[in-house]
Amino acid sequence: MRAEIVSVGTELLLGQTIDTNASFLARVLAEHGVDLLAKQTVGDNLTRVAAAVRLALDRADLVITTGGLGPTEDDLTVEAVASAVGVSMVFDQEVADSISRFFSRRRRQPPESVFRQARIPHGAQVVPNRHGTAPGLILLAGGDRTVFMLPGVPREMEGLVAEGLRPWLESRVGVEVIRSRVLRITGLGESAVEELVRDLIHGENPTIAPLAKLGEVNLRITAKGTPADVETMLGRAEQGLRERLGDAVFGTDGQTLEEAVATALIERGLTLALAESCTGGVTAARLTDIPGSSAYMLAGYVTYSNEAKVRDLGVPPDLIERHGAVSREVAVSMATGARMRAGADIGLAITGIAGPTGATEFKPVGLIYVAIATADGDRTRELRLGSEPGRRALRHLASQVALNALRLEIAQR
Amino acid sequence: MRAEIVSVGTELLLGQTIDTNASFLARVLAEHGVDLLAKQTVGDNLTRVAAAVRLALDRADLVITTGGLGPTEDDLTVEAVASAVGVSMVFDQEVADSISRFFSRRRRQPPESVFRQARIPHGAQVVPNRHGTAPGLILLAGGDRTVFMLPGVPREMEGLVAEGLRPWLESRVGVEVIRSRVLRITGLGESAVEELVRDLIHGENPTIAPLAKLGEVNLRITAKGTPADVETMLGRAEQGLRERLGDAVFGTDGQTLEEAVATALIERGLTLALAESCTGGVTAARLTDIPGSSAYMLAGYVTYSNEAKVRDLGVPPDLIERHGAVSREVAVSMATGARMRAGADIGLAITGIAGPTGATEFKPVGLIYVAIATADGDRTRELRLGSEPGRRALRHLASQVALNALRLEIAQR
Repeated sequence: MRAEIVSVGTELLLGQTIDTNASFLARVLAEHGVDLLAKQTVGDNLTRVAAAVRLALDRADLVITTGGLGPTEDDLTVEAVASAVGVSMVFDQEVADSISRFFSRRRRQPPESVFRQARIPHGAQVVPNRHGTAPGLILLAGGDRTVFMLPGVPREMEGLVAEGLRPWLESRVGVEVIRSRVLRITGLGESAVEELVRDLIHGENPTIAPLAKLGEVNLRITAKGTPADVETMLGRAEQGLRERLGDAVFGTDGQTLEEAVATALIERGLTLALAESCTGGVTAARLTDIPGSSAYMLAGYVTYSNEAKVRDLGVPPDLIERHGAVSREVAVSMATGARMRAGADIGLAITGIAGPTGATEFKPVGLIYVAIATADGDRTRELRLGSEPGRRALRHLASQVALNALRLEIAQR
Repeated sequence: MRAEIVSVGTELLLGQTIDTNASFLARVLAEHGVDLLAKQTVGDNLTRVAAAVRLALDRADLVITTGGLGPTEDDLTVEAVASAVGVSMVFDQEVADSISRFFSRRRRQPPESVFRQARIPHGAQVVPNRHGTAPGLILLAGGDRTVFMLPGVPREMEGLVAEGLRPWLESRVGVEVIRSRVLRITGLGESAVEELVRDLIHGENPTIAPLAKLGEVNLRITAKGTPADVETMLGRAEQGLRERLGDAVFGTDGQTLEEAVATALIERGLTLALAESCTGGVTAARLTDIPGSSAYMLAGYVTYSNEAKVRDLGVPPDLIERHGAVSREVAVSMATGARMRAGADIGLAITGIAGPTGATEFKPVGLIYVAIATADGDRTRELRLGSEPGRRALRHLASQVALNALRLEIAQR
C-alpha cells in the first residue's frame, strides 16, 4: 500500500508551527509497513487543498489529511476533499448529536458555528473524536483508494490514529510491521562506534543506522516482517551490537543515562552525594528527575564559589591555592567532602571551566575534572573539550561524563 | 513573489527526522514577505524529486530544495532539478578545486566520491558552502522562475541561507518585510492574559497572537511593511501590551526568565543562595546556565533528605516534626538557613511534593512552598498544582514560580 500525507494549515507555511503531526503519521505508517511516497503542506485555501488531495489520489492508495476540520471559516479540508473526490456535502444528524453531547457534558452551550462540523461528504464513514468536536472521516475515492481526514490538534489526531487509522491499517495491510529499537551508547564517539560495528551495519533487514547526539551515540535497528520475526531480528541484532560495544551501551529506546544510573544505585542500595561547580546543579537536576530519587540522593552541593567549596565541602583552602579550583586535587577533595558530609556511599564531584569567561593561560575553557570518592578510594577523569561546544553543551557533556563514570563505577561492584 | 519548498530525503518520510529545515525556510520567506504556497516532501528517488520540482515550478516563482546534495548515490536532487528544468549536467572545475581545498585545510584526502558534487546543472550559479563540501546552487528555470538548491544539514543550509538566499531575496523582493516580537509573560494564565489584552489582539497589522507554554504565556506581535514602519508598529504594540500587563512581562524574544533574574541580580549587585528540595537542582541549573553567574550565585543546596535540611541549612528538627518537610515554616527556615550559611543577600527555597509518590492525606502531589529570605524579612508562597502536570512539569513550574518571585522581589528594591 502506498500513502501520501496532506497537511493543511497556513500556520505551517509561516514556519511558526513545526509539523510534528506529519512525522507522527510517518512513523505510524512505517510501523505498519506502508510506503509513504510524499508529503504535501498547503495553506487554508479551498482550491489548493483540493488540488493537493487530487494529486495525492493520483499516486497513492491512501491519502491522509491533517488539519482544517475545525468549526471556523478557515477550516475547509472536508469540503476540499469532497470536491476532489466528486461527492456532495450532507448534514449528518449523528455527528450533530454527538457535538451537542460533547458540550452538555461540559455544561456549556455549543456555539452555532460548531455545527459546521456536522456537514460531511456524502458516504463518508465517521470516526468519533473523544477529545474534541471534529470527528475523523473516512471517504472511499474509487479504485480502492481511501482518504482519511484527521484533525490538526495533536492530541485529537493521535486519539483518532489509535482508534481509527491503526485498526483500519491492520485490517487492510495484514501482519507485516516495521519496528525499531535504539541502542544508546556513551563514552565512545560516533566514529569509534562505527569502527566497532561497521561490518554489522550493511544489512538490508534489519538495517542499523548510527546517529550522533550530544555526549551520546544512538544505533537504530529497524526490522520489517511479521511481529514475531521482527522481535527475533531486533533481539539478534541488539545482541550482536552489545557484544561489540560492551558496557558502552547504557540503555535502549527511551531509557536515559540518569535512569540507568538511578536503577543501578537502587538495585545495589547505594546512596549518593553530589558536589558541582561548573555544572551548577545540572547533574543533581537530572538525577532527581526520576521518581523515587530520594532513595539514593542524599544531598547535592552547588559550590560555585571557593568559599562554598571550603565551607560546605571542607576543601582545604591551601589546596585551592596551590592547584586552583579547577584541578584533579580539588575535584577529589570535593567528592570526598560531599560523601563524608552527607554520609553517602559515593561522592561525585565536577569542577571545570564552562566559559565563555574564567579561562587562564594553563586552564582553557572546556577543561573539566570529574571525581568519584568511595570507601575504597577515589578515581578522577580529566576532560579537555575546548570552547567550541559552548557553555550549555559543555555543562551537559561534563554531567554526561560524570554520570557515565558513576554508572561504570557501580557496575564494577 | 510566490515560493514553494521541496524537502528531499527518505528519512523525512519515515518520521525519524522532523523537517526543521522547512520551518526555518518558511520563517525566512515570511520575514521577506514572500508567500509560501506549499511544501512537498519526497524520498531519494530521481523521478519523484523531478516531478515534485516540475509541479512546484508550475505554480511558484521560487522553488527551494533542501537535502540530497551530498556525495553518495542517494543524493540526486541536483540531477533531478536539471532534468525538471531541462538542462544537462556539467563538471565544474571551480567547485572541484574548492572541495580539494576543503579537504587539504583539514589535512585529509578527499574520497573520489565527493567529486560527484562538482557535477552541476549547466548554467547554475554556485553559492560557496563554508561549512561543508556541497555548494548551494541557483538555477534559472525560464519565465523569471528560479530554483535554489540547499543542502540538508541544518548548519550548512542555514549558512547558505544567510550568505546566498537572503541577499538574493533582498535584491528581488524589495523592502517589505514581516517581523515578529514575542512578549514573554509569567505569573498570569493564558485566559487572564487574554482578558487583559482582548481588545488589542483584533488588528490586522500588526497581529497579536497568544501562545501558552509551561508556566509562561507568550504574545507574538507580527507586523508587515517597510523596516522602519515595522519597527514603529512593533514598538507601539509592545508598549500598549506592557501597559496592560505590567510586571508580568519578564522579557522579549529569546530572553529567558533566568536571564531576567540574572540581569536584575547583577545590576543591583545582589548575591543569592538556593535551597532546593523537590526541584533537586533545577533552579540552580537554570541560574548557572548564564555566563558570569558566579557574580551572584554563592551556593546551592539540594537538600533532598530531612537530615540534609537539618545539617546543611540548620532547619530545626522539631520544626520538620511539627509541620512536615513540605510546609511554609520549613520553606522559610531553608531560605534563611541557605542565606545565612552562604552569607548571601537573598535566600531562595523550594520544598514540595513532585510525585508520583510522597503524598499524604493533607499534603497532595503538587503542593509546593516557595520562600524568599532577606535581611528585611521573608515572604512565602503556597502552590497547589495537583498531580496532573506530572513530575517533570511540576518541578519546572515550581522553579518558574520561585524565579518569578525572586524577580519581583528584586524589582521592589
